[in-house]
Order: sequence, then C-alpha cells, then structure tokens
Amino acid sequence: MKAVVYEKPGSVCLTNVPEPKILDARDAIVRVTRASICSSDLHIRNGGVARAHTGVVLGHEFVGEIIETGAGVKKFKAGDRVAVNVESFCGECFFCRRGYVNNCAEGGWELGCRIDGGQAELCRVPTADMSCTRIPDAITDEQALFVGDVLATGYWAAGVGEIRPADVVLVLGAGPTGLATMMSARLYGPATLIATDVNDERLALAKAHGLCDLTLNPGRDDVLACVRELTEGRGADVVFEVAGAPGTFELAWQAARPNAVVVVVALYEQAQTLPLHRMYGKNLTFKTGGVDASQCGEIMRLIEAGRLDTSLMITHSAPLNDVLRGYDIFSGQKDGCIKWVITPYEHDKPAGPMIF
Amino acid sequence: MKAVVYEKPGSVCLTNVPEPKILDARDAIVRVTRASICSSDLHIRNGGVARAHTGVVLGHEFVGEIIETGAGVKKFKAGDRVAVNVESFCGECFFCRRGYVNNCAEGGWELGCRIDGGQAELCRVPTADMSCTRIPDAITDEQALFVGDVLATGYWAAGVGEIRPADVVLVLGAGPTGLATMMSARLYGPATLIATDVNDERLALAKAHGLCDLTLNPGRDDVLACVRELTEGRGADVVFEVAGAPGTFELAWQAARPNAVVVVVALYEQAQTLPLHRMYGKNLTFKTGGVDASQCGEIMRLIEAGRLDTSLMITHSAPLNDVLRGYDIFSGQKDGCIKWVITPYEHDKPAGPMIF
Amino acid sequence: MKAVVYEKPGSVCLTNVPEPKILDARDAIVRVTRASICSSDLHIRNGGVARAHTGVVLGHEFVGEIIETGAGVKKFKAGDRVAVNVESFCGECFFCRRGYVNNCAEGGWELGCRIDGGQAELCRVPTADMSCTRIPDAITDEQALFVGDVLATGYWAAGVGEIRPADVVLVLGAGPTGLATMMSARLYGPATLIATDVNDERLALAKAHGLCDLTLNPGRDDVLACVRELTEGRGADVVFEVAGAPGTFELAWQAARPNAVVVVVALYEQAQTLPLHRMYGKNLTFKTGGVDASQCGEIMRLIEAGRLDTSLMITHSAPLNDVLRGYDIFSGQKDGCIKWVITPYEHDKPAGPMIF
Amino acid sequence: MKAVVYEKPGSVCLTNVPEPKILDARDAIVRVTRASICSSDLHIRNGGVARAHTGVVLGHEFVGEIIETGAGVKKFKAGDRVAVNVESFCGECFFCRRGYVNNCAEGGWELGCRIDGGQAELCRVPTADMSCTRIPDAITDEQALFVGDVLATGYWAAGVGEIRPADVVLVLGAGPTGLATMMSARLYGPATLIATDVNDERLALAKAHGLCDLTLNPGRDDVLACVRELTEGRGADVVFEVAGAPGTFELAWQAARPNAVVVVVALYEQAQTLPLHRMYGKNLTFKTGGVDASQCGEIMRLIEAGRLDTSLMITHSAPLNDVLRGYDIFSGQKDGCIKWVITPYEHDKPAGPMIF
Repeated sequence: MKAVVYEKPGSVCLTNVPEPKILDARDAIVRVTRASICSSDLHIRNGGVARAHTGVVLGHEFVGEIIETGAGVKKFKAGDRVAVNVESFCGECFFCRRGYVNNCAEGGWELGCRIDGGQAELCRVPTADMSCTRIPDAITDEQALFVGDVLATGYWAAGVGEIRPADVVLVLGAGPTGLATMMSARLYGPATLIATDVNDERLALAKAHGLCDLTLNPGRDDVLACVRELTEGRGADVVFEVAGAPGTFELAWQAARPNAVVVVVALYEQAQTLPLHRMYGKNLTFKTGGVDASQCGEIMRLIEAGRLDTSLMITHSAPLNDVLRGYDIFSGQKDGCIKWVITPYEHDKPAGPMIF
Repeated sequence: MKAVVYEKPGSVCLTNVPEPKILDARDAIVRVTRASICSSDLHIRNGGVARAHTGVVLGHEFVGEIIETGAGVKKFKAGDRVAVNVESFCGECFFCRRGYVNNCAEGGWELGCRIDGGQAELCRVPTADMSCTRIPDAITDEQALFVGDVLATGYWAAGVGEIRPADVVLVLGAGPTGLATMMSARLYGPATLIATDVNDERLALAKAHGLCDLTLNPGRDDVLACVRELTEGRGADVVFEVAGAPGTFELAWQAARPNAVVVVVALYEQAQTLPLHRMYGKNLTFKTGGVDASQCGEIMRLIEAGRLDTSLMITHSAPLNDVLRGYDIFSGQKDGCIKWVITPYEHDKPAGPMIF
Repeated sequence: MKAVVYEKPGSVCLTNVPEPKILDARDAIVRVTRASICSSDLHIRNGGVARAHTGVVLGHEFVGEIIETGAGVKKFKAGDRVAVNVESFCGECFFCRRGYVNNCAEGGWELGCRIDGGQAELCRVPTADMSCTRIPDAITDEQALFVGDVLATGYWAAGVGEIRPADVVLVLGAGPTGLATMMSARLYGPATLIATDVNDERLALAKAHGLCDLTLNPGRDDVLACVRELTEGRGADVVFEVAGAPGTFELAWQAARPNAVVVVVALYEQAQTLPLHRMYGKNLTFKTGGVDASQCGEIMRLIEAGRLDTSLMITHSAPLNDVLRGYDIFSGQKDGCIKWVITPYEHDKPAGPMIF
Repeated sequence: MKAVVYEKPGSVCLTNVPEPKILDARDAIVRVTRASICSSDLHIRNGGVARAHTGVVLGHEFVGEIIETGAGVKKFKAGDRVAVNVESFCGECFFCRRGYVNNCAEGGWELGCRIDGGQAELCRVPTADMSCTRIPDAITDEQALFVGDVLATGYWAAGVGEIRPADVVLVLGAGPTGLATMMSARLYGPATLIATDVNDERLALAKAHGLCDLTLNPGRDDVLACVRELTEGRGADVVFEVAGAPGTFELAWQAARPNAVVVVVALYEQAQTLPLHRMYGKNLTFKTGGVDASQCGEIMRLIEAGRLDTSLMITHSAPLNDVLRGYDIFSGQKDGCIKWVITPYEHDKPAGPMIF
C-alpha cells in the first residue's frame, strides 16, 4: 500500500510499504479515510523528535473505518467509523487511571512516531478500545478529523487552564493548535479572549468565526501594554502560549497577572529561561507539556452538539498522491494554509512529487 | 416619597413614607431608576417569609444613582450608577471572606425584607462598598437590573453545579430564575441543556434565545424517560431544580444520573421527603439554599462582554404608580409576564390601584 | 465447603455448599483467610436489602489467597494475597472511568448480596484485576481485612467531605464505619474532630486511639450547643452522619455551619425529612450514598505507611464454626463487640450453632 | 528606641531610631516581644532584594503586644497579643479578595523591607485588622512567632501542592522553610515524606520529630535513584524545592513523576533553565513564587490544636542587644543554628557588636 515514510532527518517520501496485520489481541486495522499533516510531522522530518524511528510511516491525526479487530477488542467491530487518538493507551496503568495517557506504561505517542501511522491507506491501531473514538453518524470525517490530536490538545490545554467565567484569556498563536485552544477555552465562559499572531490572515479568521474578541499582532502592537490596559494594569487571568516563537515564552509570563495560570503548549527546540528572581511575588503557575488525549469522547459529543467546530481549519484537501506537495505548502504556511487534509490514494492517478 | 409597603400578611400598598437618611458611615442613598417585582416579594406578601418585617418597604432587585454616601464609603460617590445586591454584606467576617455573603455576620438579605428596600423613589443601602456594583457606561439600567438578585441566583447556582464541558444539564423551571440559570449554565460548556416547564410560552422563549437545546413539558412529556433516552439510560449529569412545584424535587433526583449534582434553588413552602433508602447507591450530591451574591462584578463583566443578556425577561414596564397592577399581573403570570419592571414614579400622573 | 447462607428474611445458616468455579475469564477463586461480619449482613438478614438474593452466601469484607485465576486475569496469580473489594467492577464503563464503581455497568455490590460472598472457605471474585487489592508482605490479614469495605467507606466519606486543614469536623456515630471515617478524616488535617455516640465505650476507644479530640454522648450532652460553643456559634465545617439513628439526620444538618458539607453515610430504613424552608439560607451541601471503593490501592499504601490502622476495631475473633454466635454478639453490640473476625473453618472441631 | 537598621548593601547595624507613630487610621503600634532573623534579612543585607530601602528597620517575623491603635482598627485594642504578618494587606482589592495578599494593591511585603519592621522595640503595623493575627492565651510567643512568615510560607506551599492522601512527597531543603513545609505537608495525609539536605543534623532533626519518613543527603545519596526506587520508577507525586542551591531546581523536576506538581519556594539569585524539550510529555505543573500569607488564622488554630509546632526550630535565643551576633551565627548556620530568636532589648546590659 502507499504510505508516507520518514526516511531519515530531513527526508520524507511517499512509497509502497506492506499492509499492516493484527499483532496483539487488542489491535484494530483501520482503513484511513482522512488524515492530516501536523506540525509534529515537520518536527520529526526535521530530526527534532529524538524518540521518532526512521523508517516509520508518519501520521497521527486521522479517521477511518475499522476493517478488522483482534480477539480482545470489545467496543468496536469491522465497519465502525472511528477517530484515532494520537496516543495509544491501555486505560489500566497508574497513569491511565488518572487520565495521564501520554505517560501510559505501554503506550503514549507511538503512532506515526515509533510505530506506523496514518498517512497511509491502512493503519494498525494498538489498544483499539481505548485509542479510538466512535464517530456518530451525523458527523462527517472532516468534522471528526482533528478530535484525536490538535483538538484534543486545545481541549486539554483549556481544561488545565483553570479558566473561570468572566476571565480575560490570552492565547499566543493562531495556528491550528491556537485555534483549537481558543474554541475550547470558550467553553469555560471567559469574558474576553485575546488572540495574537504575526499572521494577520489567521487572526482575521479567528475573529470572523468568533473564536476571539480581540486580536493583536506583535509585529505591530505592544501586546503587553494592550493586555494591561484591558485589565486595569493587572495582566491576563490565564495565558496559553501556543506560539513557540522567539520571545513568546517571556511574553507569556509577562502578560500574565499575578497568580495566573500560564499553560505552555508550544514545542520549543531550545531551553527557555525562567528568571524566577524577576517574577518573584507574581506567584505564577506554569502548566507544561503535551496533550493528554483522554477525553476524546467528550470532544466528540461537543462536536455533535455543535459546540466545537474545526472545519474552519481545513483550507486544503487532496489525495494521498499529492501529500508531499501538502508538506511543502503546510510547512511554509503558503497559500493561507492552516490544515492540509489527505484524502484516500487514487490509484488511477499519477502520484505527485515523491520526496520532500 | 412613594414606596411599596408590606402592611401585613396578605396586604401590600403603595403609599407615602419618609425619605431615607444615612445611618452608618458605610451607607449610601440610591435614587432608584429601575426596580423589579420578584417572586420573593410575593412570598413575603403571602406571609411565607418569617424573617420579613411588617411595615417594610419591599424591593430587593433594583438599580439607581447614588446621591449621597457616608464618610466610610470608599468606592462610590454621588452620581455613580449602581446595581444593588439583594444581600448587604460587610466583606470581612468569617462567611464573607469565604464568599458566603448570604450569612454575613451583619448582613445577608435585609433590603426589602427587614429594612426598607427599592420599590421606592429612594433607598438607603448599607455597606455600600460591598453591596453595590458599578454599572459601566455602556450598560443600560435594564441590562443591569437583574445583576443583584435573579441573575446572581442563576449564576451562583450554575457555579456550584460543577458542570463540565460536554455534560447534559437539566433545568426544571423556565421562569426568571430558571432562565438566568440556563444562561449561566451555558458559560460552563455543557453539550446539551434541557429545560422543562408547564408553560409552553416560556419554553419557546428559552429555546428561541438559545438558552436551551431541548424543551420538555411535564404536562405532556415523560421527562424521566426523555432524559434517560438522551443519556444512554443514565440520567442528567447536573440537575437544577428551580421549579418548586409539587413533585419537582422528586423528579430532580430521579432524573439525575448516579453521582450527579442536584442544585436545589427553588423555594418550597413544605418540607420535602428524602427517601435515601430508595436512592441508595446513586451517591447524589444535593446543593441547597439561596443565592450567595458575591460575584456581581463578574456578572457585570459578562454582561458588558455580551455573554449574559437578561433583557429577554423584561416583558412589562410601567412607572411605580402602576406597581400594584404589576403585582397582580406578575403573580398570575398573566399576559405572558416574566418580569415586571418598575420605572420611576410620575408625580403628575394619577397612581394606579393602591392596595394589592 | 462450609459457608454462611442467607436463607430468607430473618434467617441465616452455616451449611455446606458446592465449591465455586471460574465462570468468566476475569474471575479468580480466593481461599478466604479472614472475613468479617458487617452491619450490611444484618440488614440483608433482616430483609432490609431488596436487591439481595435468598440462598446467597453472605460476606463482602474479606481477605485471602488466590488459588486459581481465569485466563483474562493479568495482575494476579495463584499464591497472591489479596483484599477483596465490596464492589466488583469492570474499570472501563462510564461510571468506572470516573471512579463511581458502585454504579459499574456490570458490577457494583454483588458479592455476598447477589452472588456468593466470603463468609465461606472459598469465593469466586469477578473482574479480579479491578476487584482485588494486593496485600504487601509486611501487612497482616487482620490489618488488611477492612480495606475493601468499612475502611473504604470511611475513606470515601472523608474524601468527599471537602475537609480543609483547621476545620472542625463532626462525626455522628462511633461504630466501625464511624471509626473508619474518623481516621480517614484525620488525613485531611482538621484542627478538631468531635465524635458522638450513645455508647461511651466506643467513644472512649476513639479518644484513646487519638481518632478524635472531643467526645459527646447525645444521651447526656447537648451536642448542638457544644458544637456551636466550639465554633463561635457557627456550627461544624463538615459533618459526617454515620449513626443512622432516629433524629441523627436532623442533628447532622442542624450542627453544620452555613455552607457546610454534610456527608450522609448512614443507611436508613425510612425516608428522612428535608425541611428546606427551615434551612433556607444555610446553603448546605448533602453528599449521600454508599462507598465508591475505587481507591483501595491508596488505602493499602496508607496502612503500609502506618497512617491508617483499623486493628483497634477487632474485638472478637473465632473460626467460621462459631460464626452464628458472632452474628448474635455483633448484632447486639454485646461484650463490647465492634468487629467480629472470622478465621478459617476448623474441620476437626464441632460447629457452633447452625442457625441465627 | 533600639532597632536593627539596613544601612547599605553589605551593612546592618544596631542603633537608636525614633519611636513609630500612627500614620493612618488602620495602623497599630506593636511592642515587639519576640522577633526572629530570617534568611530574607540576609538577602536584603547582601543587596539581593532590589525593592528594599536603605535605612529601613529590618524584621518581618515577630510577635508582640498592641499598645496603640488608629481610629479605624476594629478587631484589636491595646493589650492584645498578636503575630504580625510578613505582608500588610487591605483585604479589599482584587488580589486580596482572592487570597493573593502578596500582590495587595496597597500592601504586600512592606515591613522590614520598605517600611520599618520588627527587629526593634516598637513597630508600626499598617492595615492592622488584616495584618495581625490574635494569639490565643494558651499559645506562647515562641509558639506563635513563625506564624506570619516562615510557617505561613510552608503552609502556603503545602496548600498549593495539591497533595493527596497516600502520595509520595519530596521536600528539598530542611532549613526553617523546609521544616515548615514538611509539617504543613503532613496535614494533607501523604503516605511518605522524603526530606533532603546536605546538613545531616537538620535531616536528623526532621526525622526525630516525625516531620519526614526518610532522609537523603545529596552529598552522599543518589536522590533521583532513591526516589524512583520508592515509587516503582515513577518519581515523587509532589516536589517542594525549598533548597535554592545549585542544581536543586533541576533535581526537583527530574525527581517528579509525570503530571506532578513542583512547588518552587526557594529564592534564587540567578535565572533557572527550563529545558521544556527535555521534559516534554512529563506534563509538569510548576507553582512558583513567595508566600501568600492569607491564612494565618487557620495556622494559629492548628497550633492551638497541637497539629503544628515550630518550637523545634528555635535553637538560639538572646536579647536584641546581641542581635548582630545572631546575624553572624544564623547566616553561617554555626552551632547548629536553625532559628535565632530575639528577645526584648535589655537597657541595663551592654549591647553586643553594633555592626554586621
């Protein structure tokens, strides 16, 4: 079958690989109907994810139809439509029982990183009962596509942010994760949500869809001064740092009011500086790390209820044949690209470029 | 000046009373610009509120302009527009420091119950720094009118309900407090909000304004069966009992799923039965009581941000001259009345009926 | 094998029954080394537990050695020592994933109620991976015996009580569950713990072991007046009603300060009266129901660390031969009996009385 | 009167200064009966506290007797014994109403830093109603001395640490704040408390008084390996970094299990490095900053109830005459010194050294 393979740092290709088979009683084989390219795929390609294995099929954000299940799978059967979770998890270990599935004793982020993922025609999903979320009939693949990763990330971030109704919330970064964070933060009733990005197009999109109340472009606006003016000089009640750009970690804690929660979602390639003596007395709480995607069922219900809608992120869509063009456009944020969606391989069409 | 006086159980009149004066350094005198009639006023009139004093001026939900302040008032001065809190509170005692202002050592619900209230031309407000909330310029009196009582009640109820995103929430009763509870509950991101009432008009209003997703009329629908069908047989995650009608307390706990929170906001005149042996193993949490109106600042910010809007409740409006007609119409839910708003007395007009 | 069987309302006997067998891949067979008699056994015997099946082997609080496991059991093997949980639970359903194991879709309180329990030589334990807790080598059977029921109950109650350091906590009832509640409540750092009982011996025991700071006997002391005097007139911050005697439900809410949590652990045979109009403004939270025994691992660690010790409850111990004498003594609280422990049947000895 | 004055970076002296006077209606004058030397005093002396004013009387941890009150003081009168809070606070501003008194709009850490403090015969205490805590008759000055600073710090740290019963807690540093953190952490029921320090004497003291279960000396023990061994390889559930030594910040987050809370209480003179890419997926929460001393009433009740006892910290005691010798011994941790207590000046005795 066709699949996107991480060859070595710097190189990704579209190639033929063997079809996956059931290896464990809890596995399921999923025929991928929609997948996406995620910025973590670019990190892997760049050699920035030490735990990633060369030769692995990429792709950790996808939906599809189950075509086969191991003997131990209880919740799903062939024919079921599912969104696959970025994290495979057992549901039973110390961490899973607390919702910390990212640290599952036998799972975590494996798919598209250490085992073959979903930028392919088929994918083996381990611990399928826990790692898949059923897609209700009324929900399209496109609506469900981001449940397992980028939306799970925004939902997790908002959930740990301790947002209270009437708060002023600041989200740094209006890319896919930033947008998912904004719409998830809205669920907690903040009075004002401020979004920042250096990309005006993305800010305009967020504003147009009601994801934020105010937008600031740090290339033009004094974010710190504006936030303080909006908060009687105090700073934001909750800050989400989703930008991961130079200076944004410092901006995040400076724009936070004393005793705020600063959720650090962004992935950095360098260590950040924590000048505790300069922030002494601010008594900030920093919540760091990556998604604990344990609540995809909740997310799916909110999509079904119309409370979450990520369709605005889908700016591009093309078959797997063209995926490497997608890597190019998505990585360069060309052509207004926010999310590139991969539809199934069309065997009667020529492939696009084969190496990126 | 003109004021509505509670004469004795069964009798309320519009009459002349002396103007209020500053009695304590923390007092303020407010010229009332808008007041409302509340169902608690009817309870007092009916003799159902033991702590109410006969001879008191009624009215505990009103807004106005400060015309005089005691020497100890720090936050307000003459000319400031304020919403007055149903509860006067010191802000310093054991209870106030925990937000339990209803039990303030020197306050609680005094206005319009034990001391003269706001269905009058002027009103003395004790501990004004704590008991008033500034109205921003952009907010009209009508928008701010319910901040201090009915909206504070709904906001308090929603706040103690422990609603989580994606929950199914059931609100029994779509009167003013029910509507305020629904819009406040929305701030916590439930997937589905179900409203019940025997009055279809009120249900239609709630639905039309997006306060709920589904409506049920217990006169026609099997509420228990419907709620269970919507929740895979479990019951609602959170239930707000705001109806206070015969059978609604029992319906509330029966419609709740195991381990749900049941917030009992309604005022009953009789004791309820708690058949713990019949609900054993359901492990329900009951949160009982009346508003702790300690968060009116937050509420005002949410109104300013457009997240809360109670204007839909105002179905009737007339000068203080006509207030007793208002009591009649409001108490009978006549003419689609949800909230009757009292505008200032017009001295050049004849009064309406003088006794109710 | 020998076992205690619930024949019909009013009658319990010690008799021969067939040995249990594995029925499901998740089952384990446990050789019972210590069991107890619980007040719920008396409720069943009295016909007061509607869901109990006649003919069932009683006993839901016991420890033993696993002698056989089904093919699906992953955590345990023959030879392991375990404490068995009063509730069998799957760990995967809606309720289990939230810790509400009492409402497990395929479990809950089954053992010794609807399926054969542990007042026997052997017992089949369903969903053994979830329903058993490993006993560390350093812990004796006697120390571990109460983990799965009475201590789990006290620990659950304390956990939902929202106790804060420096609180004044009131526990009504100093029987086994009351004592377990006291020692669990201590883990949350209250300043003062007040215990009440009509049995002075039990109060003295609680005091002597440091489980409480003060004792009150409602037969002699004015509990309400004493609690208020200790709290500047306010009432207790948290109340645990574990007595279940006439008047104790009312005492519980009256002795609570405004905005307190009242945890109702006691089993009543009659409905209680909830006079909300008399407690209006107190804004009490009632947490009702029975143990959610989802944290037995924590409890075992606390026993191992020396923070919990229920050995003080064991006043009587005798082989299964004498169990019906145990029912008599335990039910009558004769001879200072708090807990009657059943040691293994001695086949070379005559049985005691065979029917109770 | 005699007082310890911060002359300039590097220099502190015992000298004569004018007696304080009431400057604001909310002030009280306190006759100091016991004061302490705190490590923050050394930081000021070293020039390490930018906000400190030269010429200020040092001392922010002291108890005494009120001898005069301003007209606005309501809770206290001359003759009352009080513990003074390190932070003066109004109790009414945005931050105070949330318990964040360190950021009080008109207060915070002022005493002994920006206004004259308590290493003196008399001290003016602003906003006395909020900034003082009454000492019950049964409590000695020595028992109450640390309520307002070092014990408040440990109590605050423990309170934000989200400790759950049965947790494994690690405290880095067994100096005064470390000891206060340990005894406060005990209030939350952890199963195991591990203390580390390079000073074996301090570790032995902590162990002997039951403040911890295990001690590790990083000069000798592999702390990381030991903590992991005790936690099945996971790391500590909660870590308190109170050491502030080179490498202890990194040790803190490395010794924490995934999803742990790391409370950073220590004062650093340099920025720390936060290598988020190395800790990615651990999903740690860092709580930073200094004491929010808003709960001194609770602390005093816990002392009265015998649940907190800091008397073990008092290793040295001498009159104000000898205070500079105290600075020398305390700063050098000479002679086993943990806390040096200053008793009142003895005018008939010669002073000790006058400059440090």
